[in-house]
Amino acid sequence: MNELSSPSFPSSLALHSGETSGASLLRARYGHALPAPAVWNETLDLLLSHRSVRTYLPDTLPEGAIEALVAAAQSAASSSNLQAWSLIAVEDKARKARLAALAGNQKHIIEAPLLLVWLVDLNRLSKIADARQQPAEALEYFDSFLLGAVDAALAAQNALVAVESLGLGGVYIGALRNKPLEVAAELGLPPNVFALFGLVVGRPDPARPAEIKPRLPRQAVFFREQYSFGEAGLLDVEAYNERVRAFQLEQGLPQQDWSELIANRVRGLGSLHGREQLSDALHQLGFGLK
Amino acid sequence: MNELSSPSFPSSLALHSGETSGASLLRARYGHALPAPAVWNETLDLLLSHRSVRTYLPDTLPEGAIEALVAAAQSAASSSNLQAWSLIAVEDKARKARLAALAGNQKHIIEAPLLLVWLVDLNRLSKIADARQQPAEALEYFDSFLLGAVDAALAAQNALVAVESLGLGGVYIGALRNKPLEVAAELGLPPNVFALFGLVVGRPDPARPAEIKPRLPRQAVFFREQYSFGEAGLLDVEAYNERVRAFQLEQGLPQQDWSELIANRVRGLGSLHGREQLSDALHQLGFGLK
Repeated sequence: MNELSSPSFPSSLALHSGETSGASLLRARYGHALPAPAVWNETLDLLLSHRSVRTYLPDTLPEGAIEALVAAAQSAASSSNLQAWSLIAVEDKARKARLAALAGNQKHIIEAPLLLVWLVDLNRLSKIADARQQPAEALEYFDSFLLGAVDAALAAQNALVAVESLGLGGVYIGALRNKPLEVAAELGLPPNVFALFGLVVGRPDPARPAEIKPRLPRQAVFFREQYSFGEAGLLDVEAYNERVRAFQLEQGLPQQDWSELIANRVRGLGSLHGREQLSDALHQLGFGLK
Repeated sequence: MNELSSPSFPSSLALHSGETSGASLLRARYGHALPAPAVWNETLDLLLSHRSVRTYLPDTLPEGAIEALVAAAQSAASSSNLQAWSLIAVEDKARKARLAALAGNQKHIIEAPLLLVWLVDLNRLSKIADARQQPAEALEYFDSFLLGAVDAALAAQNALVAVESLGLGGVYIGALRNKPLEVAAELGLPPNVFALFGLVVGRPDPARPAEIKPRLPRQAVFFREQYSFGEAGLLDVEAYNERVRAFQLEQGLPQQDWSELIANRVRGLGSLHGREQLSDALHQLGFGLK
């Protein structure tokens, strides 16, 4: 097992005396000490070190970085090899600013040099069927949309792992779904193509580092043989609320427990910021969703 | 750049004289030689080496492997930190066999020691809102389902990268969506929880190795600034058809070009194997999808 040695490593991840990188990363990820892991490697170091980066230097990306992350994305599994996704790289500052405005004015979209937009793409499949003079009835069904969304997400996550392996950082932008028709117009999307989410990529600003965010206890999300989140799960959530508060205190962030965040987020339509119309918008974009 | 040295490395990936691992993997992934990559590292080696494994040894997984892959999954980004996914590990042979039967009788589900089932989980969020005596109206909207599906896919891909980093292999099982109600009953899923896909995990059988599958040319899926798949894209698809045929010939597989596979797959409902009823099933499982 390797010890973490990055000079810019955030303070909350400082190794305790004798602690391995695996133990340290698990402690950061779950917000408390856990038994030392029985298996570990540098890839796990990388995956557990993920943090969503919202502060960037203006540096352009290293030559070849985009090609490498696209190759990583295309290496992800694809259902029946349909490859029902596409990707647009937006580097033009004016377009990036317009997309930032559509996505709740997130300033890191402007600050970073690159916005990747991940698309559910049933247009390519439809055009191939057309070229073979065949109908494409299956594409009108809900599962085809969902398959494209899963394909796109698997590809995007591989790309983000590649990004992080190059010492760069990223953050997903779900708020691109706030205004799907306007985003489609900006990107010139044909029918049957949908911007599922964005991914901002750039060089993290070491002066404003992001921290590893603690997650729910393993047993609150991971079950054996059958689903089992119940009363005990709600106690796990309460333990998590305490860990989140401790993290916020350490980071000098405003105190809000996670259950309260959840309750506020799911209560009504106010937190959906237009996404309550997503189903209508998808129909307008040509998806059958039958 | 590292040279690939695994003794079980498939023949089609044999390094050409003087070729780096990056060049070799790009050649395998795209089915033809490309310019040497300007950046490369061992993580890219791992990501580009992905192949879907459908032949397994019966070996149990190494101690700690499941905990490591769950920690990797939980380290993936989650939209607004809602963590709208859960995971069930199925190791019971009888249950695994029943799920294999529901998923088109894929024998690798039986052969491998572990089937992970990735869930869109809005139940946990709903229960948290209940505990705070709040409504959860936002969960009834399409975007909440989609957010959970994206969260689950990002988590699963991190888990698969972790799996492969440990020398194990995996394959996604989209066919769990053929019979969503039966799968939900088998796994004891409450309302607002959906089995999005499975992921079989185990030790690949070196006697029956899987190959890296070539993907579409980069420019057929990757665009700059705006969407641009058109007539030139269809020519790229024809070039891909030739590369797929060359791969099939090399592997002794039946010849079928990719466009024909696509046309057959999307033509009608026959290839959906029950998934044409997915939208109805999701409503029955409690999702509003408004």
